[in-house]
Amino acid sequence: MKVALIMGSKSDIPLVESAIRILKGFGVPFEVKILSAHRTPDDLERYIEEAEKAGVRVFIAAAGGAAHLPGVIASKTLLPVIGLPIKSKDLMGFDSILSIAQMPEGVPVATVGINRAKNAALLAIQMLALEDPSLLEKLRDFRQRQKEKVLNAEVNLDEI
Amino acid sequence: MKVALIMGSKSDIPLVESAIRILKGFGVPFEVKILSAHRTPDDLERYIEEAEKAGVRVFIAAAGGAAHLPGVIASKTLLPVIGLPIKSKDLMGFDSILSIAQMPEGVPVATVGINRAKNAALLAIQMLALEDPSLLEKLRDFRQRQKEKVLNAEVNLDEI
Amino acid sequence: MKVALIMGSKSDIPLVESAIRILKGFGVPFEVKILSAHRTPDDLERYIEEAEKAGVRVFIAAAGGAAHLPGVIASKTLLPVIGLPIKSKDLMGFDSILSIAQMPEGVPVATVGINRAKNAALLAIQMLALEDPSLLEKLRDFRQRQKEKVLNAEVNLDEI
Amino acid sequence: MKVALIMGSKSDIPLVESAIRILKGFGVPFEVKILSAHRTPDDLERYIEEAEKAGVRVFIAAAGGAAHLPGVIASKTLLPVIGLPIKSKDLMGFDSILSIAQMPEGVPVATVGINRAKNAALLAIQMLALEDPSLLEKLRDFRQRQKEKVLNAEVNLDEI
Amino acid sequence: MKVALIMGSKSDIPLVESAIRILKGFGVPFEVKILSAHRTPDDLERYIEEAEKAGVRVFIAAAGGAAHLPGVIASKTLLPVIGLPIKSKDLMGFDSILSIAQMPEGVPVATVGINRAKNAALLAIQMLALEDPSLLEKLRDFRQRQKEKVLNAEVNLDEI
Amino acid sequence: MKVALIMGSKSDIPLVESAIRILKGFGVPFEVKILSAHRTPDDLERYIEEAEKAGVRVFIAAAGGAAHLPGVIASKTLLPVIGLPIKSKDLMGFDSILSIAQMPEGVPVATVGINRAKNAALLAIQMLALEDPSLLEKLRDFRQRQKEKVLNAEVNLDEI
Amino acid sequence: MKVALIMGSKSDIPLVESAIRILKGFGVPFEVKILSAHRTPDDLERYIEEAEKAGVRVFIAAAGGAAHLPGVIASKTLLPVIGLPIKSKDLMGFDSILSIAQMPEGVPVATVGINRAKNAALLAIQMLALEDPSLLEKLRDFRQRQKEKVLNAEVNLDEI
Amino acid sequence: MKVALIMGSKSDIPLVESAIRILKGFGVPFEVKILSAHRTPDDLERYIEEAEKAGVRVFIAAAGGAAHLPGVIASKTLLPVIGLPIKSKDLMGFDSILSIAQMPEGVPVATVGINRAKNAALLAIQMLALEDPSLLEKLRDFRQRQKEKVLNAEVNLDEI
Repeated sequence: MKVALIMGSKSDIPLVESAIRILKGFGVPFEVKILSAHRTPDDLERYIEEAEKAGVRVFIAAAGGAAHLPGVIASKTLLPVIGLPIKSKDLMGFDSILSIAQMPEGVPVATVGINRAKNAALLAIQMLALEDPSLLEKLRDFRQRQKEKVLNAEVNLDEI
Repeated sequence: MKVALIMGSKSDIPLVESAIRILKGFGVPFEVKILSAHRTPDDLERYIEEAEKAGVRVFIAAAGGAAHLPGVIASKTLLPVIGLPIKSKDLMGFDSILSIAQMPEGVPVATVGINRAKNAALLAIQMLALEDPSLLEKLRDFRQRQKEKVLNAEVNLDEI
Repeated sequence: MKVALIMGSKSDIPLVESAIRILKGFGVPFEVKILSAHRTPDDLERYIEEAEKAGVRVFIAAAGGAAHLPGVIASKTLLPVIGLPIKSKDLMGFDSILSIAQMPEGVPVATVGINRAKNAALLAIQMLALEDPSLLEKLRDFRQRQKEKVLNAEVNLDEI
Repeated sequence: MKVALIMGSKSDIPLVESAIRILKGFGVPFEVKILSAHRTPDDLERYIEEAEKAGVRVFIAAAGGAAHLPGVIASKTLLPVIGLPIKSKDLMGFDSILSIAQMPEGVPVATVGINRAKNAALLAIQMLALEDPSLLEKLRDFRQRQKEKVLNAEVNLDEI
Repeated sequence: MKVALIMGSKSDIPLVESAIRILKGFGVPFEVKILSAHRTPDDLERYIEEAEKAGVRVFIAAAGGAAHLPGVIASKTLLPVIGLPIKSKDLMGFDSILSIAQMPEGVPVATVGINRAKNAALLAIQMLALEDPSLLEKLRDFRQRQKEKVLNAEVNLDEI
Repeated sequence: MKVALIMGSKSDIPLVESAIRILKGFGVPFEVKILSAHRTPDDLERYIEEAEKAGVRVFIAAAGGAAHLPGVIASKTLLPVIGLPIKSKDLMGFDSILSIAQMPEGVPVATVGINRAKNAALLAIQMLALEDPSLLEKLRDFRQRQKEKVLNAEVNLDEI
Repeated sequence: MKVALIMGSKSDIPLVESAIRILKGFGVPFEVKILSAHRTPDDLERYIEEAEKAGVRVFIAAAGGAAHLPGVIASKTLLPVIGLPIKSKDLMGFDSILSIAQMPEGVPVATVGINRAKNAALLAIQMLALEDPSLLEKLRDFRQRQKEKVLNAEVNLDEI
Repeated sequence: MKVALIMGSKSDIPLVESAIRILKGFGVPFEVKILSAHRTPDDLERYIEEAEKAGVRVFIAAAGGAAHLPGVIASKTLLPVIGLPIKSKDLMGFDSILSIAQMPEGVPVATVGINRAKNAALLAIQMLALEDPSLLEKLRDFRQRQKEKVLNAEVNLDEI
């Protein structure tokens, strides 16, 4: 039971870092691959097949601009594919989110918010938790800590 | 193992009809509820709890405009929530898709395309298939039929 | 007679600072709370009830991205709720303003411009002035000073 | 204690009709005026003064396109002004909502969603309820009926 | 020397009809194929190879929404690919044009305007004319007739 | 024969600087005023009247966000009003340009591009040239110099 | 002293009809020409020269999509050019208004709102009035009638 | 057999640099010209004619804002014209891409993504390869190297 996290360029690593930290934190096995829908279509296809055999259950694909990577993966697998739109330099991610979410009927991609790498990882874990209920406990803990962080915030109005 | 399909108004039924047909076609048990994040927040909260107990494993929430329903559900459950943005009368769904996808880090919603009810259902089934591999076969059949439909299309150029 | 100013994260404080300064300047009692529609939904609900009992008459809620906070508050209270859209990192606040303003019929949110924290506070004071006419005088003074500031601006064209 | 509902053209009446019905239903006194920020600026100014004297406590202004009416009113009164963006023929209301909400700091307009005339009226009543608590009861009833309408919706899945 | 015109669904035929008429009118050999980047990825790949062998020199791909078809073709061939964005039901083609034009560096798609099928065909012919100068003459005639059509338009102002 | 250049805040001076330089360069008399449609509506109205009497023939109004200044001026004068949309901090000027250009039928504003202060001044001069043909000569010279500047640009490809 | 009204296709006539009616109503001489920036560039250039000689003082150019007509005219004349963006079938005029207003510094186009043909004509008349003060009187009458039309609108609230 | 690369200002050189490097790398002869659709329309026209005679087979035109350069060139030549939208300071290139791609039927421009200079050059080479098959080999090598660059990327997860 693994998550595969795919992106088109090594330069995207900083953007998906928080996804990696979440997966590590939850103890969920994962693989990170640099593969491009347009530059390495055949290697991508080969990888998807191998990944399925190696126990990958959910794909996360990060992409920006004409962001085809998640959709191309979704067309090659029956496993759920999570699309993570990357903020583009020119159109701020408008292009990325629309290219990922607006898939034709029949081949869905589970799209999260622009640059929301953390959410991509959490969504993958929520899916895996359908299979492995021990993850549910960890998700509950995560939400609890997250809640406490909000509640413990202290505001000093005197400084304003 | 059930899917819960929630929307804010009975008038949304025609828009989610194709999701219902997919769920029926795959033989996946499901419930349809009319509940609103803003008009019936307490009933919604109560329903989410009941639904979890009754075996719901994935929520699909359809909403338009300031489409808070999927996010509000996601804040109350650890199960995966699929957000289905409805095309709005004024801004064509731009508001719906952004209100659903752009969730803050920590509480993801799996967003599909605007009015892509079919994709919402298929994504739910892909998630359930992680638990119930028999659904994988049905997904494979679905894709196969879908593929054949494309390949069997005949174009008569003489008419043009 | 108080104003409650709510935001999802302590990091939003700099963005609402000018609202705080306006409320202080007008001598209007107010509370500032860090609470999130998605991370602390129950605490938020509890706070709204307490706040109403403690004399809060207007809520201001600052939020960005899929900005549900103002709408969620509005669904839990009959008091007026002012929504302050925060400029988001990716979509510049397009998502924030649409997620706040485009509420379904029946549950309004009084939306001000993106990052217009000052206007959120002034609008709250205009509402309170319906009850406490002494605030009208202060609003008149504020406008007068604002006007004078514009009229006193001196332009030195020789430098250009 | 009255509400003034202003719009630039008689042809906008169908769009604000639901606001009028809400105000009637709540028994809130109101006036409807056809006045334009650009075509009748002096008459508009005169009316605002008269309206204040005649007991108007909240203004609702409906406008589309370069929708200046709410902002122009807000610059002439200290009372709260609710801006109702009308869906424009060409840009669907994108222009209307931005022209209304994005007011400069110092002169707020309480903006509701595009074509949400009902919400404009409800927001006005919420404001008046700060002064007249009997309106709170009516708002509570309204919300209750609205809630029941959602809960009583019955969905016939057999037809799908 | 042929043009291949590919689209994802038979229902797109009316939208590409004018491209077909242009190709017929110029006497340029062409093939029309219904193939989908997401529903028939393998058949699409196979076709591209066959088409190249059968003398196709330019691909035109029509697609809407998350319009991946032109980019996917471009990733599989070294021949020029023309992307024709189809107006989508929800976002009017904003998604289509961005999904097609915003390709990553290294794999270009020659994008024409939304629903500009005629321009897609003319651009293909301009490319083929680099190889076959007889097409230049036909393009010159086409432009001439087009020019005359504009110049011959008569306006009757008396009717206004 | 004068041009009046109006803006809402002294902080806009750097943005209209190039307009001032053009007017100076052409030797066209002009006045610069800080006046706000919302903060100093009465002073603005008074100034417009005075300006007309003092020989102003064209108004240029720079404004950002819900940019009402040009439209408000246009509603008070029969002289041509040029609207200069200022790039806003949040929505990059989308709000500014729509709030200025989308005026209702009957009260036009001559809108130039976002932050195109130079064009606002040149357009004013083109209008004045209808009255004072000597300006035509200066415009011709300006265009000529502008043309030469383009033609004299030298590109050193060896550095690339 | 004439106005030239140019558009790319006879099919635009219904959209500029109200401009023609305004020009007729004001007794301003005008010419209507069908000429295209892209299909008849040389004829357009020739016409601009002739028009200037024939006494044209202002150009109005209506165009949609990649609306280059006003800008191309502006590059060939020193007279003021008014750009009238036409609502496009696909992008509602977003493309038209940006293609017209966002001209580079040095060559302004006076842009009016999308499909605001009436405003294009009124702006042209305001410009001509700088030369011919008799038009000022007519503009004053027009505004007066326009104002009366607003003030005479009667609203029957009993029907609602 | 040459490519002509045209832009409106010397300051655009850094943005088209990568196009120049690609053309150099492929050994394709090219010319770079600074010419503006609006500031030097006659020189532009003259250059197009000369360029055709001098063996130019494809034009690349880079432009931002109301980006008319590619369309104006396309109206003067039968050769393929590639439009390269430049990211604009205010609207991020939304204006540039729409002004270039949305050409009227009859006069196509092959549009690439915003600031995708490399893709503009590669597309030009793909077109030239229709005539000169030796370029096909170079394109194949380019794609191969590009692929290897992706495949050779190494990710060090330990650092995260």
